[in-house]
Amino acid sequence: MLVTASKETLLCMSLAGRPGNFGVRFHNHLYQQLGLNFYYKAFSPNDLPAAIVGMRSLGIRGCGVSMPFKEACIALVDELDASAAAIQSINTIVNTDGHLKAYNTDYIAIAQLVDTHEVPRTRFALRGSGGMAKAVACALRDAGFTDGLIVARNEQAGRALAQTCGFEWQAELGSERPPLLVNVTPLGMAGDQAETLAFDVSAIDRADTAFDVVATPARTPFVVEAERLGKRLITGDQVAAIQALEQFILYTGVTPTEAQYQAAAAFARG
Amino acid sequence: MLVTASKETLLCMSLAGRPGNFGVRFHNHLYQQLGLNFYYKAFSPNDLPAAIVGMRSLGIRGCGVSMPFKEACIALVDELDASAAAIQSINTIVNTDGHLKAYNTDYIAIAQLVDTHEVPRTRFALRGSGGMAKAVACALRDAGFTDGLIVARNEQAGRALAQTCGFEWQAELGSERPPLLVNVTPLGMAGDQAETLAFDVSAIDRADTAFDVVATPARTPFVVEAERLGKRLITGDQVAAIQALEQFILYTGVTPTEAQYQAAAAFARG
Repeated sequence: MLVTASKETLLCMSLAGRPGNFGVRFHNHLYQQLGLNFYYKAFSPNDLPAAIVGMRSLGIRGCGVSMPFKEACIALVDELDASAAAIQSINTIVNTDGHLKAYNTDYIAIAQLVDTHEVPRTRFALRGSGGMAKAVACALRDAGFTDGLIVARNEQAGRALAQTCGFEWQAELGSERPPLLVNVTPLGMAGDQAETLAFDVSAIDRADTAFDVVATPARTPFVVEAERLGKRLITGDQVAAIQALEQFILYTGVTPTEAQYQAAAAFARG
Repeated sequence: MLVTASKETLLCMSLAGRPGNFGVRFHNHLYQQLGLNFYYKAFSPNDLPAAIVGMRSLGIRGCGVSMPFKEACIALVDELDASAAAIQSINTIVNTDGHLKAYNTDYIAIAQLVDTHEVPRTRFALRGSGGMAKAVACALRDAGFTDGLIVARNEQAGRALAQTCGFEWQAELGSERPPLLVNVTPLGMAGDQAETLAFDVSAIDRADTAFDVVATPARTPFVVEAERLGKRLITGDQVAAIQALEQFILYTGVTPTEAQYQAAAAFARG
């Protein structure tokens, strides 16, 4: 059902240093399928506070926030949801009559995924120490994972993240062979490191579950290897789609069916 | 040709106290017909400077400005085109790499219409003294009309406008029977004054040309009466469509064919 643009159309947007196409395609496709009078537009602002000022003045309904704005936005909103407060990083803003409430739907998506995949609350190793690593580590902690190892060459960031969540830190995985391996680095992402395995084959072989947050491509060397070895898989395109679905529900108040959601995710990837 | 929304989509917008549907429908229809990756969104900002700040930061390509923002926007842009400078009132802003240049396409549309309808440069009476009356009076002056009468009950505004353009002022038309009658008041507009004739039947009967700026409805009592009497007609829906076309060309750099333009105007009215 295609809704003709009118003066009543509500706008949602994303703010990113380098916008992608996933959100634009995912949200607009669902708006059309569900006959919702919304439109989604990706922006790359040159002045973040000015963009948020504009969001308030224009009554823009929702805003996805990507790198490098996830922390800087905190000071610009009125309220943090528990998901954003837990990690002091936001990726979603909802504007209700001028009141801006911020969420972190990456955190929500990760908590959902370890539940729906019934990942045992065993020891895990998480590679990475950036903003997304913080979202993943805190989501795992709050989902009941108590025995974690942060693997990060950046000692300062790695130790800080480990301390925040009550986990350990090591610069390298070493001889550790935990049942759950989580990659939250660019290793395997399209670009310079596309061919790099995030974990050694021997570590993957000894694990039960491989969780890669890299979404482009979803089939990283780590995922391909874990699949070959028959491991439980959680992939970055699932994180991207579920966090976008949570944003969609927050913006519109409408929950698509599983089939509608899957079709939109497939369209957005394609 | 329907263009799928992507990260490259350019946004244009309108700012109005009470947005209408004409611009949204006109621009989006033409974008689709011409396969242009643009989207047009109507806004009603609660803070005008904040909205313009947002336009700059987000890189919004174009902005239509309606009541009550046409004068207040002047201080917020970087440059005035001659069309806006002539009347110190703007209805269009074009954003080129952060440089905001303002135009008045109402002024441009009126100048075009008196040319294409080959209206003789005779004496005229213009009823009204508001912002749009200023655009019309200045456009007529700059199109070569030297002998004009501003008819306005508001003496201060009427005298000021007459003085600006070198015309005369009267509170009422009285016994004047000029060849060109121009209505730039809400007389005949949908609402309380829908049934009111902007000029007496005897004045219409003695005129050659009836020009009504009221667009909703286009067939005001003044237009209906002038048509019955066989006069040359210029109607408000023509002004609305031509000024929108000029905005479209400024935003996209693309000039639609006459048929495409007429189809978009018909779609936008419908």
